[in-house]
Amino acid sequence: MIENKTQRSADYSAIAHTYRPGHADYTYDMKYGFRDFRGGGRSSGRETSMRVAGGAFAKLFLKEHGIRVDAGVIEVEGIKADFTTWNPPFPGPLCAPECNKKAEMEKAIEKAKADGDSVGGIIECRISGMIAGLGDPVFDKLDATLAHAVMSIGSVKGIEFGSGFESSRKRGSENNDEMRMENGKAVFLSHNAGGILGGISNGDDIVFRVAIKPTPSISKEQHTVTDKGEDTVLSVHGRHDPSILPRAVPVVEAMAALTVADHLLIERAYGKR
Amino acid sequence: MIENKTQRSADYSAIAHTYRPGHADYTYDMKYGFRDFRGGGRSSGRETSMRVAGGAFAKLFLKEHGIRVDAGVIEVEGIKADFTTWNPPFPGPLCAPECNKKAEMEKAIEKAKADGDSVGGIIECRISGMIAGLGDPVFDKLDATLAHAVMSIGSVKGIEFGSGFESSRKRGSENNDEMRMENGKAVFLSHNAGGILGGISNGDDIVFRVAIKPTPSISKEQHTVTDKGEDTVLSVHGRHDPSILPRAVPVVEAMAALTVADHLLIERAYGKR
Amino acid sequence: MIENKTQRSADYSAIAHTYRPGHADYTYDMKYGFRDFRGGGRSSGRETSMRVAGGAFAKLFLKEHGIRVDAGVIEVEGIKADFTTWNPPFPGPLCAPECNKKAEMEKAIEKAKADGDSVGGIIECRISGMIAGLGDPVFDKLDATLAHAVMSIGSVKGIEFGSGFESSRKRGSENNDEMRMENGKAVFLSHNAGGILGGISNGDDIVFRVAIKPTPSISKEQHTVTDKGEDTVLSVHGRHDPSILPRAVPVVEAMAALTVADHLLIERAYGKR
Amino acid sequence: MIENKTQRSADYSAIAHTYRPGHADYTYDMKYGFRDFRGGGRSSGRETSMRVAGGAFAKLFLKEHGIRVDAGVIEVEGIKADFTTWNPPFPGPLCAPECNKKAEMEKAIEKAKADGDSVGGIIECRISGMIAGLGDPVFDKLDATLAHAVMSIGSVKGIEFGSGFESSRKRGSENNDEMRMENGKAVFLSHNAGGILGGISNGDDIVFRVAIKPTPSISKEQHTVTDKGEDTVLSVHGRHDPSILPRAVPVVEAMAALTVADHLLIERAYGKR
Repeated sequence: MIENKTQRSADYSAIAHTYRPGHADYTYDMKYGFRDFRGGGRSSGRETSMRVAGGAFAKLFLKEHGIRVDAGVIEVEGIKADFTTWNPPFPGPLCAPECNKKAEMEKAIEKAKADGDSVGGIIECRISGMIAGLGDPVFDKLDATLAHAVMSIGSVKGIEFGSGFESSRKRGSENNDEMRMENGKAVFLSHNAGGILGGISNGDDIVFRVAIKPTPSISKEQHTVTDKGEDTVLSVHGRHDPSILPRAVPVVEAMAALTVADHLLIERAYGKR
Repeated sequence: MIENKTQRSADYSAIAHTYRPGHADYTYDMKYGFRDFRGGGRSSGRETSMRVAGGAFAKLFLKEHGIRVDAGVIEVEGIKADFTTWNPPFPGPLCAPECNKKAEMEKAIEKAKADGDSVGGIIECRISGMIAGLGDPVFDKLDATLAHAVMSIGSVKGIEFGSGFESSRKRGSENNDEMRMENGKAVFLSHNAGGILGGISNGDDIVFRVAIKPTPSISKEQHTVTDKGEDTVLSVHGRHDPSILPRAVPVVEAMAALTVADHLLIERAYGKR
Repeated sequence: MIENKTQRSADYSAIAHTYRPGHADYTYDMKYGFRDFRGGGRSSGRETSMRVAGGAFAKLFLKEHGIRVDAGVIEVEGIKADFTTWNPPFPGPLCAPECNKKAEMEKAIEKAKADGDSVGGIIECRISGMIAGLGDPVFDKLDATLAHAVMSIGSVKGIEFGSGFESSRKRGSENNDEMRMENGKAVFLSHNAGGILGGISNGDDIVFRVAIKPTPSISKEQHTVTDKGEDTVLSVHGRHDPSILPRAVPVVEAMAALTVADHLLIERAYGKR
Repeated sequence: MIENKTQRSADYSAIAHTYRPGHADYTYDMKYGFRDFRGGGRSSGRETSMRVAGGAFAKLFLKEHGIRVDAGVIEVEGIKADFTTWNPPFPGPLCAPECNKKAEMEKAIEKAKADGDSVGGIIECRISGMIAGLGDPVFDKLDATLAHAVMSIGSVKGIEFGSGFESSRKRGSENNDEMRMENGKAVFLSHNAGGILGGISNGDDIVFRVAIKPTPSISKEQHTVTDKGEDTVLSVHGRHDPSILPRAVPVVEAMAALTVADHLLIERAYGKR
């Protein structure tokens, strides 16, 4: 039990009857007929604390099998980290791989805060030490279940594996990862698949990217409506982050770790691993 | 029972012991210790016939609630359909909305075929007549379950909702969909959310896009390995499509329809709808 | 969160390394390699508090549909309550229907306590105001899921519906419940089915009986073994009930109510109720 | 696919609009608004063919772990088989263990047939070579899931484990199975638990008994109603068994084998077995 000792419900009085644009306020009211405006309830980032707690155990279990899961912020408001090495865990408040764009990325977040606005970005997750053969062949494919788990994190608007949306612009001859024997082991000459073929891991690192939208609660004025059906203008104040990017990093890792651990346990049930 | 009356297993003899690059051949062997090379087994597009059959019933059920699901090909090998109206169902072999790029898109597929190669592209799906309030608030969010269902279709490498990956490059003030009252009803002034907020439908059309990779089976020569661990070069012949884009359209619709129907049935269990 | 404020772990020191005959002590050690001897952990009756809490909500929901669930102790150590009316809730510490054997039943429990021993008995549960049509036709039959739910309560060793084991000694002509029209409604002339035919409720009261074994923790000496593999003799002291019969009554009601509520929600999902 | 090549739908015309007492006819109509009177649909014994097919694979899997599942008819219309050895598989049409009551049991079935009536009885199932530690500790206890699986077979009206309903008439000092070390292994001095303590297998043989009601379709005249709400009298003709007892034996074995196999696979997922 994690007690929420520093809540300041007064921060939320302005939105008691007004829907924040881009927020779950409206849909919760549509679904349940009421909502707890003091913090967002289950649509709040607080909900993810249990995910991270569970993910910590999944990571320990995966570690025993030589598998590790790491994520980092690789893009902020369109500024892409042109990193050359992936050397997790990533230091600093941004949780981004070292690159010459890191300062620029951090500044984009500060600038948005100063403007009473927010920014989104992209998180990349890599699962290394993977075992080939994880994932169900039809509905519970490894990428399908990872997508389910990761898309269930608030603010995620998209996910792609390997070369992802870019693969749709390539020809088969470019996108297929050719293979060759190396030291008695089959290796892939490129990594467009992102470690998954036919929904099953191929032993390569799993790589996926997650689109995070900018936080909806901003202090800039926006047109919206009240729960009485009146037009109004809203400016949200309180402790709202200009970006949830760094906070989402451990949540993405946790959901990925839990999913891979599940598949590993299923594989074990059939007498493997 | 759908009998497979036109199989020509002889087409597959060349790949009996050789892994096709980019194909599930390799991962099936890693998982199961064997594979049925005569058609790909469950990794074949044939598997989707049951999905489409089930989806047809889901669509009938949704129709009773005024909901319809339509998909179309909106990009082929990077050529984007700049359509202005969405007027499904889309005629012709490409299943694409009318636009001045349609001929170019079709030509790209033909060109790939002539080159013994393949192309990928992007499918957009829109669910109209939506009801606000569908979707679970935590793990089984509406977008999470749609992502699970759609990513479980072969060749899908990514999915994004609303402005998707583009939303990650925007500020909150641009990306939030402002609201206003119109004829006693709250309406959204933009549609970046793609119809889902906090994992719950907001009543707007649901819009998502799916990245389809180019088909892996191509007749161009590629480096690969055999199941005996030897390097080899493979050129795949037989009835392989240069693109599965148009064939994937009804499958995307089916999986989306089944998912929304599930959420509608759950909502009903709680005494609504 | 229910705090366990009156635990007296010292009561359990004698059984730290010794298995109580008839208790889950041994199987927990076999499964997990350790056990929490201070109260039995999840094999303790304490675990059922959450079931009763959940069942209270299920009962409220069923009440809205005119359905109620009541259970009572109808047999103690072979002494059968020959009650004529079923008038729940049943008063007194035994939770048994009024009958001329009630004093004898209570005395049996007291006698067992005085002897340092324990007794079992039978609980009957009736679900009235039932709706015809609840239950799945194949695996999740109404009686199958009730059996699952009720058998998951500790100390339950058997369950029977309607005339149950007695029906196996009858002929079809005796056991079939004949029907007749009464005031435009089909009624049953006997109630051997216990309200369920083919796994689906027939609208009659559902009646089932549950065999409760005598509590295993007794102060009489018994032969057993230690977790070091030594023969020993055990006499269990501490706050152990001579019978869990009255305490099991609300748990049986809770599990039955939750199961029927589940089936009602499923029925609702298909647009009924 | 098993084709039903010998159906004689004409046999069923008499019951097209009349409910057979004791049969699922009535409840199927109440649930679905229609029923297939030509054979009972999913309430027919035909449905169990898939269970037996699946159970055959489960038995092969269990065999690899030294576990076997056998059932036999031990009581017909109250006539109890006083067998001394359990030597499966049991020969002859009755599938009963050898005993001096076998002829009498068989005669009871023939007599019922001659009378245009039917009989029920009791099937015992024993699972030998068991491993200690199978079963979940709370809701999916081993006995709870076996009860679910077995109660989902048509005509089953009760199930009891070990001394079952008789345990409710004993004192703890009689019912607890005392333990002793034998050749370095803990053994039980009696077998009242039926191989399960706290929902988890204790390594002893699992023993349970199943109450089978007499078949409802009999040619004796019975009062019933039509689906138009009229009183009528019904005498059912056609190929109806006077008892399903021997046919239910492999189905009980199949459901038990599938359940134990599931628990074994779960145990494996946690790195055991």
